[in-house]
Amino acid sequence: MAGSSDRRSDCPVACSLDIFGDKWSLLIIRDIFEGKKRFGELSASMEGIPTNILTNRLKRMVAEGILEKRLYCQKPPRAEYVLTEKGTDLRDVVMVLFKWGRKHVPGTRQKLPEQDISPRL
Amino acid sequence: MAGSSDRRSDCPVACSLDIFGDKWSLLIIRDIFEGKKRFGELSASMEGIPTNILTNRLKRMVAEGILEKRLYCQKPPRAEYVLTEKGTDLRDVVMVLFKWGRKHVPGTRQKLPEQDISPRL
Repeated sequence: MAGSSDRRSDCPVACSLDIFGDKWSLLIIRDIFEGKKRFGELSASMEGIPTNILTNRLKRMVAEGILEKRLYCQKPPRAEYVLTEKGTDLRDVVMVLFKWGRKHVPGTRQKLPEQDISPRL
Repeated sequence: MAGSSDRRSDCPVACSLDIFGDKWSLLIIRDIFEGKKRFGELSASMEGIPTNILTNRLKRMVAEGILEKRLYCQKPPRAEYVLTEKGTDLRDVVMVLFKWGRKHVPGTRQKLPEQDISPRL
């Protein structure tokens, strides 16, 4: 987990971006909201995330307390990733990006995924 | 401006991140919401943005139609950056990051900047 000494400032916006300010983290979160849980499912994202980046971002988000890694099989070891409360609160972040993109980027799909990721909005 | 062929997918979340999914773009937008307009003001951000990154992100956001570059002095040439409607709609994105960080990152400042960036929320 990033210590306060790693922070660029005490601004909540900057601290949020220190954690997930990149092209991939929130797409992984989007996919988990859509029901994906396992590395193999997440690596099959439509954007074609490189597996080394997926590994790195999952580790970081587990360390940050956004995701929990749960072993669902001991032999062979198999894990799945589950959102914590901190991670679940990223729903609003994903949704606001969805709305902005839908409004301002021509040609994007206009509907939410089958499994609505945000009943609250 | 990124053509549709540069896109990773037609997902509005991915397309939004294609444009501003990095550690700096939304901090520049935050500072412009707070009233900064000129390169010198923006380069004095509390996070210490490197000037080459600031130059790159400003160019990209002008090309994307998020910012407009206006010359306010011809001789010597001096420019300021103003949010377009597309850029103004990033207020909700900045605000949701502010709220998430304030709630989940210990030690961040808990108040909005002096000049409230979001009278709508």
